[in-house]
Amino acid sequence: MTEITEAILKKVITKRSSDTHKGDYGRILLIGGSENYGGAIIMSTSGAVNSGAGLTAVATHPVNLTALHARLPEAMFIDWRDAKLANLIKNMDVVVCGPGLGMSDLAKQIMVILRRCTSEKQTVVLDASALDLISEDKSLLPTNAGHLILTPHQMEWQRLSQIRIPFQTDSANIDALNQLIPDSNAMLVLKSNHTHIYDGKGQVFVNPLGNPGMATGGMGDTLAGIIGGFVAQFGPSVDTVLAAVYIHSLAGDLINKDNYVVKPTEVSKVLPKLMKKYSELS
Amino acid sequence: MTEITEAILKKVITKRSSDTHKGDYGRILLIGGSENYGGAIIMSTSGAVNSGAGLTAVATHPVNLTALHARLPEAMFIDWRDAKLANLIKNMDVVVCGPGLGMSDLAKQIMVILRRCTSEKQTVVLDASALDLISEDKSLLPTNAGHLILTPHQMEWQRLSQIRIPFQTDSANIDALNQLIPDSNAMLVLKSNHTHIYDGKGQVFVNPLGNPGMATGGMGDTLAGIIGGFVAQFGPSVDTVLAAVYIHSLAGDLINKDNYVVKPTEVSKVLPKLMKKYSELS
Amino acid sequence: MTEITEAILKKVITKRSSDTHKGDYGRILLIGGSENYGGAIIMSTSGAVNSGAGLTAVATHPVNLTALHARLPEAMFIDWRDAKLANLIKNMDVVVCGPGLGMSDLAKQIMVILRRCTSEKQTVVLDASALDLISEDKSLLPTNAGHLILTPHQMEWQRLSQIRIPFQTDSANIDALNQLIPDSNAMLVLKSNHTHIYDGKGQVFVNPLGNPGMATGGMGDTLAGIIGGFVAQFGPSVDTVLAAVYIHSLAGDLINKDNYVVKPTEVSKVLPKLMKKYSELS
Amino acid sequence: MTEITEAILKKVITKRSSDTHKGDYGRILLIGGSENYGGAIIMSTSGAVNSGAGLTAVATHPVNLTALHARLPEAMFIDWRDAKLANLIKNMDVVVCGPGLGMSDLAKQIMVILRRCTSEKQTVVLDASALDLISEDKSLLPTNAGHLILTPHQMEWQRLSQIRIPFQTDSANIDALNQLIPDSNAMLVLKSNHTHIYDGKGQVFVNPLGNPGMATGGMGDTLAGIIGGFVAQFGPSVDTVLAAVYIHSLAGDLINKDNYVVKPTEVSKVLPKLMKKYSELS
Repeated sequence: MTEITEAILKKVITKRSSDTHKGDYGRILLIGGSENYGGAIIMSTSGAVNSGAGLTAVATHPVNLTALHARLPEAMFIDWRDAKLANLIKNMDVVVCGPGLGMSDLAKQIMVILRRCTSEKQTVVLDASALDLISEDKSLLPTNAGHLILTPHQMEWQRLSQIRIPFQTDSANIDALNQLIPDSNAMLVLKSNHTHIYDGKGQVFVNPLGNPGMATGGMGDTLAGIIGGFVAQFGPSVDTVLAAVYIHSLAGDLINKDNYVVKPTEVSKVLPKLMKKYSELS
Repeated sequence: MTEITEAILKKVITKRSSDTHKGDYGRILLIGGSENYGGAIIMSTSGAVNSGAGLTAVATHPVNLTALHARLPEAMFIDWRDAKLANLIKNMDVVVCGPGLGMSDLAKQIMVILRRCTSEKQTVVLDASALDLISEDKSLLPTNAGHLILTPHQMEWQRLSQIRIPFQTDSANIDALNQLIPDSNAMLVLKSNHTHIYDGKGQVFVNPLGNPGMATGGMGDTLAGIIGGFVAQFGPSVDTVLAAVYIHSLAGDLINKDNYVVKPTEVSKVLPKLMKKYSELS
Repeated sequence: MTEITEAILKKVITKRSSDTHKGDYGRILLIGGSENYGGAIIMSTSGAVNSGAGLTAVATHPVNLTALHARLPEAMFIDWRDAKLANLIKNMDVVVCGPGLGMSDLAKQIMVILRRCTSEKQTVVLDASALDLISEDKSLLPTNAGHLILTPHQMEWQRLSQIRIPFQTDSANIDALNQLIPDSNAMLVLKSNHTHIYDGKGQVFVNPLGNPGMATGGMGDTLAGIIGGFVAQFGPSVDTVLAAVYIHSLAGDLINKDNYVVKPTEVSKVLPKLMKKYSELS
Repeated sequence: MTEITEAILKKVITKRSSDTHKGDYGRILLIGGSENYGGAIIMSTSGAVNSGAGLTAVATHPVNLTALHARLPEAMFIDWRDAKLANLIKNMDVVVCGPGLGMSDLAKQIMVILRRCTSEKQTVVLDASALDLISEDKSLLPTNAGHLILTPHQMEWQRLSQIRIPFQTDSANIDALNQLIPDSNAMLVLKSNHTHIYDGKGQVFVNPLGNPGMATGGMGDTLAGIIGGFVAQFGPSVDTVLAAVYIHSLAGDLINKDNYVVKPTEVSKVLPKLMKKYSELS
């Protein structure tokens, strides 16, 4: 088991070349936000936009359109019932699915569309309800995606892997991941107060950072968005995911120095400055 | 009568243990916000989120959904007419009911559901219109709740206790509270320029802080949210309520140093920093 | 003609007495904001809330509810078509009517209701479209109000007084005001790059402050809100109006030191700090 | 080819004369923002408002009204289907058309109205989808406008000029612009990592500033809004356009010093301060 260090940020967050345009920093779609959980997809999108994705789109319940744009005019919107969703998915580099998605029949249908429309060049990040839907029906896994990143917390992983929390050891988790997705391009980000990352090839990494002020609703949604934003820009490597996990906690620790509770939106807000710092050390 | 001191903050706002998750900091539901008074429930929710509740949900008129999420994506939403409200209430640690609730028949029905669905392990904070509805019909009191905290201002207390403001002495208030809720777990936070807190067992506490710049609409809604957020994290003790009242005024005094009028949303905004300070002195 | 000086702020913005509550700082209703001009009533309300009115309500087209609360949860809302508007008006200390009101039939009907429901203890501030509607039909003037404050810019005053801009001399303006409202409690705030204020008794005051960075849409709406907020707290005297006009420009000058254009919302934002400063010199 | 220098800002951004009002700083209408791309018109409007346009109106899909006002109460709104749009266009000094407009039939109809209603005294800035619609149908060009400013990125210019990106040399671009609009008052702002500006009379200017942190969705929408805001205030000269392009990049470079990604809304936010600085050097 390897502990992630600050060095991963210097390695991953490279200086941008001047001869580039927004298309070079990836197209990302975030899917989620039911009538009840619109805030989750907004917070996740904030993670993607602030980490520097080139183009960001959001598929959500239309009731969430206005709050999304009031906070994030940078994001394009599509009604998640819109027939054009399938084509949109096909044109993306990264799809983050799950924050506030809910467990409705519509949510399941969206997962079916996602599975059908993803292909080898794409990365799919699965979070929250998307994982719970897969727990109920494994055939919803978008296995055609070139890279799959699962970001459950321990209870979601229990439902998905059938491994109860006290028994979620590294070896059990590695086996369960391999069984669930027999593909070395799958990664598992198992969120806890010391998040473990499994790379699908047997490697295990542990995040040494983070603090209990981050134990508040929306923190995981934000992480999923940051992972998506990082993959959109830096490619779907294990290093990219490690860097995203590390910077999320680093931002949280920074905020927690002065704040008892760390609000997820604050984590996103400090990303541009943090990333700048490390890009200059790269 | 005991004057609350800064010491209560050091005592109540403990350092969070690293081995914790959002579930450990409580589930809170805020109910309120009619078509006319949506701002009240938004300000109350801001108090709960910024004081560090683990998971925050809001039951309100659907017209308030978008403004809520534009300001507070951290909060989950449920239409207050939704049949699922009853179950949601059952799963909460704390329910704050009243800010902007209004006096409609629907508001009464919601109070009936609240009464029916609360149980011994829960704390209910009653504020504003919820208290006025109870003034009209005492049977609406959610007496099954393990802890009941009433937060009237003097006029609301007059309507509820039938004690006119000039006669609201400590002994009269203690008697009225005991008569209204013959349960030593009831607390009364009687808001005025020197708020008194009654613990249901005859103890009286007075808040020495606060300033007339705080005399603006929404300040009480914010306090109710902070009390809810504190109980969610620190448990339903008298000390918790005293700390919430004290920090609300302390924040207001801090802001008032530089601002003629203290906006309720500013009070919420400084909570994470203030709480951090006292948690490190604890 | 008297030039307003900084002394007016020290005189008007008194320290608040500790034994007060929000009712002591006035109830204000702002009416305006059609489907097209919702921003105007939002900016006006921001002036009222930030200048410290005790309770602020807004009657507007329902399409503006969410943007209002997203920016100003402190304000209560009423659909301007709501039959309860008449009663609400009766319970107010101050009504500001006009920002973004528009020239529709509904706007006229609202002016009729306003006229019918105001009484001697109230102050009405008339701005923007409200003045243009009165230009078309003098019977819309709410002459029952104890105090009437008109805040036209020069072109609106031309339409109302029939005095073309080059001929808007002090003596002509005094005559026109007396003819329009033969009541010494009427005041005219004639906005220009050197705003003149007429007190209805022949006195003329000139505002020495202000800058051309303030020449942007919404600046007048904001002033109307501040005048309303000041009257709600400090009473309907000429001094109060002079202080409101002066602080609006003082805030604009302060912002203009560092900003080429002065956004109206920024003017409102600095009011709490500016008012604090002068209250301590009082 | 001339490189733009800081001197252009001192030249264009003049001190405002004290004897002016909002009408002197231009009336600007921004048209765009479909159901999917509301954020684009919001970001563009932010550029116009923050650069100091006197009066700003927005014609957009009604679904975008609330998010627009939540962010920018300074802007007036009109439903882009509203029959009054034609008259509104006629009363404007500047029209910016295209950000988030989309390729729908309605978008085409709006372009037809724009073409029909513009006249010699007006400037039209064409961006994004407006350019793509013209690529499909040249008759949509609003050739009656006194000044036409096209702001394509390289791919949009390829579609419009039929010159593939590698062949977009200055001479080819000059020829194509002259062929497309045989009018020396047309200007072309060809956005890339070194934006070139063509003045319609054969002059070519290059922008030396900008950085790859600006390679994010919405940056071009913001530039179109700033160009519009500058033309509204400083007139439709080549210098005005050069200054707008330069300050947009200067703002981006300033933000990029501390931020890995430059959010378009941040660019708009720093304009009032940057413009102040240069107005004092003028």
